[in-house]
Parts: sequence; C-alpha cells; structure tokens
Amino acid sequence: MRAEIINVGTEILLGNIINTNSAYLSRKLAELGINLYKQTVVGDNMERLMTSLSDALNSVDIIITTGGLGPTQDDITKEAVAKCLNKKLVLDNESMQQIENFFMSRNKNMNEYNRKQAYFPEDSIILENTVGTAPGCIIESKEKTIILLPGPPNEMKEMFEKNVFDYLNKKSEQIIHSRFLRLFGIGESDVVKIIEDLIEEQDNPTIAPYADGYQVSLRITARAKDKTDAISLINMIEEKIQKRLGEYIYGRDYETLESVVLDVLASMNKTIAFAESCTGGMISSRIVSIPGASRAFVGSVIAYSNEIKIRELNTQKKTLRKYGAVSEKTAKEMAIDIRKSFDSDIGISTTGIAGPTGGTPEKPIGTVYIGLSYDNKVEVFHFHFKGDRNRIRKLTTFHALNILRKYLSSIS
Amino acid sequence: MRAEIINVGTEILLGNIINTNSAYLSRKLAELGINLYKQTVVGDNMERLMTSLSDALNSVDIIITTGGLGPTQDDITKEAVAKCLNKKLVLDNESMQQIENFFMSRNKNMNEYNRKQAYFPEDSIILENTVGTAPGCIIESKEKTIILLPGPPNEMKEMFEKNVFDYLNKKSEQIIHSRFLRLFGIGESDVVKIIEDLIEEQDNPTIAPYADGYQVSLRITARAKDKTDAISLINMIEEKIQKRLGEYIYGRDYETLESVVLDVLASMNKTIAFAESCTGGMISSRIVSIPGASRAFVGSVIAYSNEIKIRELNTQKKTLRKYGAVSEKTAKEMAIDIRKSFDSDIGISTTGIAGPTGGTPEKPIGTVYIGLSYDNKVEVFHFHFKGDRNRIRKLTTFHALNILRKYLSSIS
Repeated sequence: MRAEIINVGTEILLGNIINTNSAYLSRKLAELGINLYKQTVVGDNMERLMTSLSDALNSVDIIITTGGLGPTQDDITKEAVAKCLNKKLVLDNESMQQIENFFMSRNKNMNEYNRKQAYFPEDSIILENTVGTAPGCIIESKEKTIILLPGPPNEMKEMFEKNVFDYLNKKSEQIIHSRFLRLFGIGESDVVKIIEDLIEEQDNPTIAPYADGYQVSLRITARAKDKTDAISLINMIEEKIQKRLGEYIYGRDYETLESVVLDVLASMNKTIAFAESCTGGMISSRIVSIPGASRAFVGSVIAYSNEIKIRELNTQKKTLRKYGAVSEKTAKEMAIDIRKSFDSDIGISTTGIAGPTGGTPEKPIGTVYIGLSYDNKVEVFHFHFKGDRNRIRKLTTFHALNILRKYLSSIS
Repeated sequence: MRAEIINVGTEILLGNIINTNSAYLSRKLAELGINLYKQTVVGDNMERLMTSLSDALNSVDIIITTGGLGPTQDDITKEAVAKCLNKKLVLDNESMQQIENFFMSRNKNMNEYNRKQAYFPEDSIILENTVGTAPGCIIESKEKTIILLPGPPNEMKEMFEKNVFDYLNKKSEQIIHSRFLRLFGIGESDVVKIIEDLIEEQDNPTIAPYADGYQVSLRITARAKDKTDAISLINMIEEKIQKRLGEYIYGRDYETLESVVLDVLASMNKTIAFAESCTGGMISSRIVSIPGASRAFVGSVIAYSNEIKIRELNTQKKTLRKYGAVSEKTAKEMAIDIRKSFDSDIGISTTGIAGPTGGTPEKPIGTVYIGLSYDNKVEVFHFHFKGDRNRIRKLTTFHALNILRKYLSSIS
C-alpha cells in the first residue's frame, strides 16, 4: 500500500512555519508498514491543490492531508477534495454541536466562519477534534482513501492517535519496525567506516546512519509479519553493532542524553546541580524537560556576570582577574562550589566564549571549559568548538551531559 | 518564474529528521520574488527521484534540490539529475583539491567515498562547500535551472547565501517583500475578527495571520519593483494595524519576546535576574541565546527542590509548609529574594505544576505563579495552563517574558 502526505498551507510553502507534521506522519506510516511514496507541500491555492490531489490519486492508495480545515476563507482542503471526487459538501449536525460546545466551554463567541468547519464531503467518516475546533474526516472513494487532518500539530497528532492509527492498521498486512541507536562523540563517516560491512551485507534489517550536526543515529529497520519477529531480527544486529560502537551508544529510540543521565542518577540515588555560564540554563532546562527531573536534579545557578560568579559561586576575585572568567581555574571553582553550596553529589560547571563577540587570540570564540566535581575530586575538560553562538551553547550542553554520562558509567 | 524545492533523503521522508531546509529556502525564494510552486520530499530512491525531477522539469523553471550529495551509496542526487538531463558525471579537479584540503586541515583520513563528491554533471557551475565536504552545483539546461545543494542545514545555508542568492537575484524581475508583526496574548481568531476588513480589502500588500500554538504573527506582503517601494506600501498598512492591535504587538520580523525585552532593559540600563522553578532555566536560556545578553542579564537561580528554594532564595519554610511550593506567597518571596541577592533592578520568579504528575484538585497540572519584583513592589500573576509538561513550561516562559515587557513599557 502506497501513501502520500500533502501538507496544505501557504505558511508552510513560504517557509514561515517549519513542517513538523510530515515528519510525525511519516514515522507513523513507517510503523504501520505503509510505504510512503512522497511528501508534498502546496499553498492555499485551489488549482494547485487540486493538481496535487489528482496526481496523488493516480499514484498512491492513501492520501493524508494536513491543514486547510480552519475557519478562514483560505481554508480550502475540504472544498478541493470534494471537487476532485465530484462530491458535495454536507452539514454534519454532530460536528456543529461539538464546535458550539467547544466555544461555550471556553466562554468564547462563535462566529459564522466557525460553522464552515461542520461541513464535509458527503459520506465522510468524521474525526472528532478534542483539542481544537476543526474536525477531520476520512473519505473512501473507488479503492482510494483520503484522510483530512487539521494543521496545528497538537490537534493533528491527537486525532491521528485516537482514530486514524487504528483505521490504517486494519488496512496493512506487513509491519516495518525500527529501532534507533543514539550515539554521541563520533562523526557519521567514522561510524560508517566501522560498520561498513554490516551496512552492506544487511537486507533485513537494514542499517541507516543519520547525523543532525550534533549526534549520530543508526536506524535499524526490519520487515516482518509482526512486531515480535521484527524485534528479534533487530536484536541480533544490534548486538553486533554494540560490540564495535558500544562506547558511543548512549541510548535507543526516543532516549536523549538528558533522559539517560537522569535515569542513571535516579537509579544510583545521586543528585546533581549545575553552575552554568555560557549555556545560560540550557543544560538545566533540558534536564527539567524530563518528567520526574526532581528525582535527581536539585537546582542550578546561572552565573552570567562576574559579580554573580563571585557572590553566588565563591569564585575567587583573584582567579577571575588572573585567569579570566573563561578558564580552567574558574570552571574548577564553579563546579566545586555548586556541589557544596547546593549539597549535591555531583556538580557540573560551564564557562565559555559563545560569541559573536568576546573572542581573543588566546581564547577565540568557541573556547569552553566544563568542570565536573564529585567526592573530593574535580576534573576540567577543555574544548574549542566551531559555529555560531547557539551552536556553541548546544555543543557545550551535549558535551556536559556526555561527560556526566561517562562519569556515571565509570562508577557503576 | 516558478520554482520547486525537492528535498532528497529517506531520513526526511520517513520523518526521522525535521525538514528545516525547505522552510529556509521558501523564505529566500519569497524574498527574491520567485514563485514557489511546490515542495516535494522523496527518498533516496533513483526511480522516484527521477520521476519527481521530470515532473518538476515539466512544470517549473527552477528546481532546487537538497541532500543526496554525500559520500555514501545512498547519495544519488547528482546521478539522478545527470540521467534526467542525459549528461555524464565528470571529475572537477578543484573540488577534489578542496575536499583533500578539508580532510588535511582536520587531520582526518579521506576515504574513497569522499572522492565521489568531486564528480558533477558536465557543464555544471560548481558551488564550493566551505563548511563541509560536499560541493553543490548549478546546471542550466534548455531554459531550466537545477540547483543542487547539500542536505546538512548549515552547509546548505552557507552555500545559498554565498553563491545562490545572487545568482537567482539576477534572474528575477519583481520583488516580494514581507514584514512580520509578532503578537502575544491574543488568539488567532480574535486577531482576524479585529482586522477582518483590512484583510479582505487588501490586495497589495496582503495580510495573512499565522499561529504556532503560542503566538500569533501577521505577515504583510507587498509586491513592488524594488524594496523601497514595497516597504512604504507595508508601512501604510502596518500603521492601521498598530492602531487596533498595538497592545499585543511586541515586535517585527525576527524579533522575539526575549530579544525585545533585552533591548529595552539595556536601553533603560536596568538589570534582571530570574528565580526559575518549573521553567528550569528555560527563560534564562532564551535570554542568553541573544548576543550581548550580559548588557542586562546578571544570572539566575534554578530552585528546583524545596531545599534549594529555602537555602538559595530565602523562601520561608513556613511559606512552603503552609502554602506549598506552588503558591502566590512562594512566587512572591522568590521574586523578591532573587532581585535582592543578585542585586538586580528586576526579579522574576516562576513556580508551577508542569506535570505529568503532581496535580491536586486544588492545584491541578498547569497551575503556575509568576512573580515580578521591582523597587519596593512585588506582583504575582496566576495562570491555569493546559497541555503537556513542556507546553506548560513554554507558556510560562512566554508569559514571564511578556509580563516583563509590559512592565518595562509601563515605566518608559
């Protein structure tokens, strides 16, 4: 079974918003073993949308659209699909009721445009929108299926998970299951070189490397009649990869450096605090993004100015004067002090020159020190990163988390 | 002139990475006044890529591809384009030299795959890659132009800005110029209702509203013979919008709440410090993402555990016991203390229940208090947000920045 995703919306076509919907839907279709043939983005333009719809009707079995179901005159997806299939738009009373309830429950007035959202191509299966106002629908016509979903990502996901996933699952025979191995501290081409033979000899599962500029992932994808069979195929190949690249592999699938270190800290009953300068809260914020961060994270000081480094972190004035805020000595003092003053088991500090100004010949932009303090010890790691301000901050954040991960695995 | 963007890569097609390249390129094409007809994503599959290329050659004048120029056997864009146009792939000596230099300068070994990157369809204009190893190219053939760019966003952008923008600028006659107005604190449908007449009566410039789930933007787009004419058309319509929606408009174009408040703070010579609990560093990190954050930002305490709230922020044990960590009283004490202990002009605090656990009937998930302390005053704002953990944290962050913005405009 072949599918195409058509994202409708001038705001996506013109690049004003990033298209996250197609990434989400693509992953879901892969899970379902549905062969995604193409993704297309078209603007809110009747003629072009109809061309894309008819092209897709000629080449795939399932079309999923997102966007264009809203209340404004730019929202034309239902009209375009109805025209393509020679269907009328008819009122769905239940949807009208739900839209009215949505506005009542929020004490908002409903306007005439919102009523448009209760009209659908005839014989549609209506998909309730529990998060927003625009319902979606499924239209089956001459062995083709067209699924219309709203544009806002949270509404689209909710609707897909509640209704569309099961609907599609019944249509599909074979499943594709993937597992991601997440690596840090090694480049894509080195990964490929180390497991080149595995990549080449494998047909099922396949191994594919990806890099996002910070980390490398390996996707292992198996085709099988069910998930259990797929998983055992994947396990066999993962074992081989672990033997060669184990030291760089920190997690699987949706695990992140922050979720992995938080889990390990919690399982070891250890607490952590950060003294952040150039990262400015980015490390802490990533840790706090994980549910249950309080299992191990007590808090942080963001010591951005020198005054705060001195006052809050007992960084010696002498140190700042003699070595500067971005120095091994300062990183050391910050890491020790945050651990002591926050009474945590581990303290981590960052100080660096993120740019765009502030670089010197001795300490160019990208100079970063990361301190790690535990027991009576302190280690400092020194980096020269390349890139713009936020790339340097992000690299510092990932390396700090990875330093923590490696320390934890060394003591476990 | 019509254009199509084709993103090549199974990792995008399968949704493993988010497609930011097409958003970037779309914006650039709009700036250049080139009419973007469609965006397409295809996997690393010779047959499908060739189909997409021939479809595009039939309907547009300019095709821009991203991805598939790398060293692995999956990288087939140059091969596909050459086949489509009946051209051979030929070695470019200069590119080979540059690839060799790239590896030398990084003390890395070059492998045989990297050599593939120096081959291009014959008669190509080569585009040097100063960030990575894969050069791009421009191929002109029978009044059509095909531009091949690398997949990694930083390499693609660098190449586009250095070479492709000027190349395309020479081809285009009329320009399209857009300005965004950024709004916070009002929903999209309310914005539309307030300026409905303006949206409908306008043809040039056009006004289009966008919402990302947190903020609303209005894009004003003018067509004109040059940028100066376009800007004066835009100014006229912005004036009308400002009269009706001025209180919600915090910035233009790439301004963000954080960049705006930082600029105002710096211009007023005022300093700020944050005491973050549920936001966990997110507010500070956004502030620090802006170059020159040190003009106004001194630092923050992330007081995640109650112990740290007591020790670092002098939050009264009594307050925590009687009212709880998520309370008006705690937010008040945190805001006052961070301002005093960090000696800043303004102190802002956040405390809330971000979930997924920790909610109670009296204080459900989404209960958030934001404190604002200045001079001898302190105000606390109380919210009930809906959504998952990170949506609640992000909403808290935006509201805190907006509270700061409104306070600053009230005293200026």
